Amino acid sequence: MGISKQKIIEISVKLFNEKSYSATSVQDIVNALGVTKAALYYYIYSKEDILFEIFDQTMATAEKRLSNLMKEDMSVEERIRKIVYNHITAVFDEAPKISIFFTEKAHLTPDNLKAINARRRKYEEKIAEVFKDGVEKGVLKKDIDILSTVYALLGMCNWLYHWYNPKGRLKPDDLAKRYADIMLLGILNDKI
Amino acid sequence: MGISKQKIIEISVKLFNEKSYSATSVQDIVNALGVTKAALYYYIYSKEDILFEIFDQTMATAEKRLSNLMKEDMSVEERIRKIVYNHITAVFDEAPKISIFFTEKAHLTPDNLKAINARRRKYEEKIAEVFKDGVEKGVLKKDIDILSTVYALLGMCNWLYHWYNPKGRLKPDDLAKRYADIMLLGILNDKI
Repeated sequence: MGISKQKIIEISVKLFNEKSYSATSVQDIVNALGVTKAALYYYIYSKEDILFEIFDQTMATAEKRLSNLMKEDMSVEERIRKIVYNHITAVFDEAPKISIFFTEKAHLTPDNLKAINARRRKYEEKIAEVFKDGVEKGVLKKDIDILSTVYALLGMCNWLYHWYNPKGRLKPDDLAKRYADIMLLGILNDKI
Repeated sequence: MGISKQKIIEISVKLFNEKSYSATSVQDIVNALGVTKAALYYYIYSKEDILFEIFDQTMATAEKRLSNLMKEDMSVEERIRKIVYNHITAVFDEAPKISIFFTEKAHLTPDNLKAINARRRKYEEKIAEVFKDGVEKGVLKKDIDILSTVYALLGMCNWLYHWYNPKGRLKPDDLAKRYADIMLLGILNDKI
């Protein structure tokens, strides 16, 4: 079969989800790919290297979606709705990677963990800026606590990876609308 | 030093948080306790046994708090506020265990994982009953989707273990009030 860095990552995501990062050996990955260890090491340095790639790609997708959304011209309310929608569809689309992202960070090297945490903070700060802008414009209540509100929003969306069944009755659009409604009714200065 | 099952669990919680469950050996636990392996095995069967105890105690605390709260007589709104407060203070008080609870479940035996998942579902269903009751009484909007709303509430509260700094400016009471406000404004039939 053909081998590529992305193919290695995909197989690893599957294995890490099935039996955790620590219980998956490089040999397991090699067996699942049907290649030799030498062939694998042409593309990656170590198992942790694969783990970091998973974290990097997960962050990169989220960063790109948020950055695109921030370029568009829209109201604060609309932007918060889109952030919820974006974040929920990201959790849906990337569920297997997201699950690793939220459970396996202890296995990143300290430097890689530091780098990922810095990117997460930046991502959260970008969202916080939208809320801050909303408060300054008088669209959002002036007494909201911005950071904990951003985490409330991210928490409800991120939690999906724990419970959501893609074959269930709720579709991402529906869920995004419901969650954005809850959040916005709680913080908008003029109730919708 | 004195040794007890609870002491073993406490030291293990510390070690699992410092370097993950899989990177912690029984020898590490024994060393941290300053006892022999034989002494440790008098109290526990295996490392997984300790992990399951952590899960069991975390669930037991949450179950007991919820069960006490359900016995009290109060309005639906008050009960939802108390659920948020309870859940947030549990995440605060039990932070080191909670963090293991949410990241290490892949290392439970299949039977233990099944048992824990069943208890989680029961816990979630009890909360769902409160929301259902609220809808039936006309206190909550009749078109809310109960299960995803319960998960929104649990998601925002559980997420605290990812970001909350107990030395920070926000106290549990303050946070609980803010989160309950967001949730209730989003779902109450008559706005507060």
